[in-house]
Amino acid sequence: MDAKIVGWGHTAFGVHKDKTLEALIQEAAAEAIEMAGLEPADIDAIWLGHFNNRMVADAFASSLVLGLDDGLRFKPATRVENACASGSAAVFAARDAIRSGAARRVLVIGAEKMTELDTPGVTEALAGASYSGDEAGMSFPQIFARIASGYFQAFGDQSEALARIAVKNHRNALANPLAQMRREVTFDFCNTVSEKNPMIAPPLRLTDCSLITDGAAALVMVAEDMAGDFAHAVGFRGAAQANDFLPMSRRDMTELTGARVAIGRAYDEAGVTVNDIDTAEVHDCFTIAELMIYEAMGLAPKGRGAEVVAEGIAERGGRLPVNLSGGLKAKGHPVGATGVSMHVLAARQVTGTAGEMQRPGAELALVFNMGGSGVANYCSILAAER
Amino acid sequence: MDAKIVGWGHTAFGVHKDKTLEALIQEAAAEAIEMAGLEPADIDAIWLGHFNNRMVADAFASSLVLGLDDGLRFKPATRVENACASGSAAVFAARDAIRSGAARRVLVIGAEKMTELDTPGVTEALAGASYSGDEAGMSFPQIFARIASGYFQAFGDQSEALARIAVKNHRNALANPLAQMRREVTFDFCNTVSEKNPMIAPPLRLTDCSLITDGAAALVMVAEDMAGDFAHAVGFRGAAQANDFLPMSRRDMTELTGARVAIGRAYDEAGVTVNDIDTAEVHDCFTIAELMIYEAMGLAPKGRGAEVVAEGIAERGGRLPVNLSGGLKAKGHPVGATGVSMHVLAARQVTGTAGEMQRPGAELALVFNMGGSGVANYCSILAAER
Repeated sequence: MDAKIVGWGHTAFGVHKDKTLEALIQEAAAEAIEMAGLEPADIDAIWLGHFNNRMVADAFASSLVLGLDDGLRFKPATRVENACASGSAAVFAARDAIRSGAARRVLVIGAEKMTELDTPGVTEALAGASYSGDEAGMSFPQIFARIASGYFQAFGDQSEALARIAVKNHRNALANPLAQMRREVTFDFCNTVSEKNPMIAPPLRLTDCSLITDGAAALVMVAEDMAGDFAHAVGFRGAAQANDFLPMSRRDMTELTGARVAIGRAYDEAGVTVNDIDTAEVHDCFTIAELMIYEAMGLAPKGRGAEVVAEGIAERGGRLPVNLSGGLKAKGHPVGATGVSMHVLAARQVTGTAGEMQRPGAELALVFNMGGSGVANYCSILAAER
Repeated sequence: MDAKIVGWGHTAFGVHKDKTLEALIQEAAAEAIEMAGLEPADIDAIWLGHFNNRMVADAFASSLVLGLDDGLRFKPATRVENACASGSAAVFAARDAIRSGAARRVLVIGAEKMTELDTPGVTEALAGASYSGDEAGMSFPQIFARIASGYFQAFGDQSEALARIAVKNHRNALANPLAQMRREVTFDFCNTVSEKNPMIAPPLRLTDCSLITDGAAALVMVAEDMAGDFAHAVGFRGAAQANDFLPMSRRDMTELTGARVAIGRAYDEAGVTVNDIDTAEVHDCFTIAELMIYEAMGLAPKGRGAEVVAEGIAERGGRLPVNLSGGLKAKGHPVGATGVSMHVLAARQVTGTAGEMQRPGAELALVFNMGGSGVANYCSILAAER
């Protein structure tokens, strides 16, 4: 019996100096449980997506949510991690728990508290998601810069396309009251290296990089035979995970092969093509990633993702608006929360509850969440059940 | 459709200066896949139990096993973490994946590489599994010392019983060629504070503490309709997880309440009592924990666990031999590996393949694996299918 999403919660993404990881987790969880119209005691099992790696002291965070309500005591609670795809890992594990019959009402939380450390500290913690064998000491901006350089060598300089992706996602975030940066940026600003837009790791500029963010998101999922009791029910038409080799040296870095595999599997399961998708939330940890995800989605052939940008396909109002939430670029990227946040936003799109972000009439929403440089790849295709 | 354990692997536990986390993972995985008579490409999904918290640089370890064989590329691979119960968390998530129909042949790995850091470094990393709110700065020896002190205050000094548990587990490890410490220790040595057996955190002496260990263990599980194709098949008669509040201040620390809840649920599911269990592998991270687990298992009423020791019930040859492997105390405690190792050893007992550790005729084996100070609690009751 499959799982249906019947409730969701989402903290504001940003810098929350006054909120601990525990507080963020509990805030999102309480909102999701309340929206579903359940009591905490109704929940059978809890899954937490969380990366951490000493960004905060809490290295054993699965049970932090129990402090929300005594009714959660003695529930199974488990943390899952797949780097920046930890949130989707929690969604997928929770869905397995429902499909297995082990649980009928599940709480999924994704959370990260990143701003206790300074930027070098966060960069070092995130670098733990690379291969320690022959990538030790590389930061993620350096990793995606290497990817971008390889892509540029193979297919030409794409700096302008990347700048336009940043502009799009910043503009989209204006419609998302929970986004971290709600400020329009111009193409000229993004496309020009300046004091305010320095080169972080050539060819990636500051505006090509996503944000350092505190935040949490949550879902309540139930067994489908109960879904009729809830105001909203969102199902998985397709869902697939594909992990690739961790070392970059073992992969063709001019494409996101694992992304293509996961997305392809999800299309097959759903019986759809990219042309059936109404909107997508995808993993723009760097603008080059969004460009390459266009190709993995089948929006453009390999090496021609810039055509998607040039034709405005992914723009609000385009054929397939991508990251109407603002994406990791402007909504923010609390790494463990991101995958759950994407599922929340996709669920809101297909239930027509996305507010100013809404794509009118959206029926099928795609989520693509990635851990590392294309290593852990999760794709979900969501649709409202009624 | 339930999951059956059909293969297992287990590295030697100890100090492996020459083996990386990646090497340990691949060694255990290869052994389990080979024992099951499968090819790596036959595996549908992979679950890794792993704690880390910067004991090694690899903070994104789920995909490390893919390097074993190209046939593993694009398989879903996910890390789960529940502190020192991360191994059981992987077993449980993998079982859900099979029961859900998402996978038919699953690889479960538990692994930890602890000896890259010195002892203070490891102690600090493990301390991340306590509550950062009001337990910040406490080490795990201090946490279990506080538990032991509270227990002693309530029920009298149990130092002798703790020493006898250490003696038992060290003696048992002589029969386990994979154990870290295969050296008998005397009751007088364990029960006397000395230069070689210092007080670590009163009332816990060095001999009351488990070891710092490198190691990995692995299982192959398959859907039960395929289990007839394998030489061995071990099933879950009962399996339960219960998480308790993380802060100690919210729990009665004179008992392991969550342990009692999880074990009781597993008994109920299996339709058995403690009297039906032939042998158990339990979480003796500290000797006081094993004593209190006797009570949680129902071997003795609350406060009277020492009677189990006095009557020799848990000894090899006793009514319910506990930790025939040597336990965390002498087999070693590579934290992410421990839960998987316990399932391997229980599977070997019920299939009569435990070598010198074997309890003759063992049919039902209990596993109890714990994360934190009684926070994440997993109990499995295993039996051979034929």
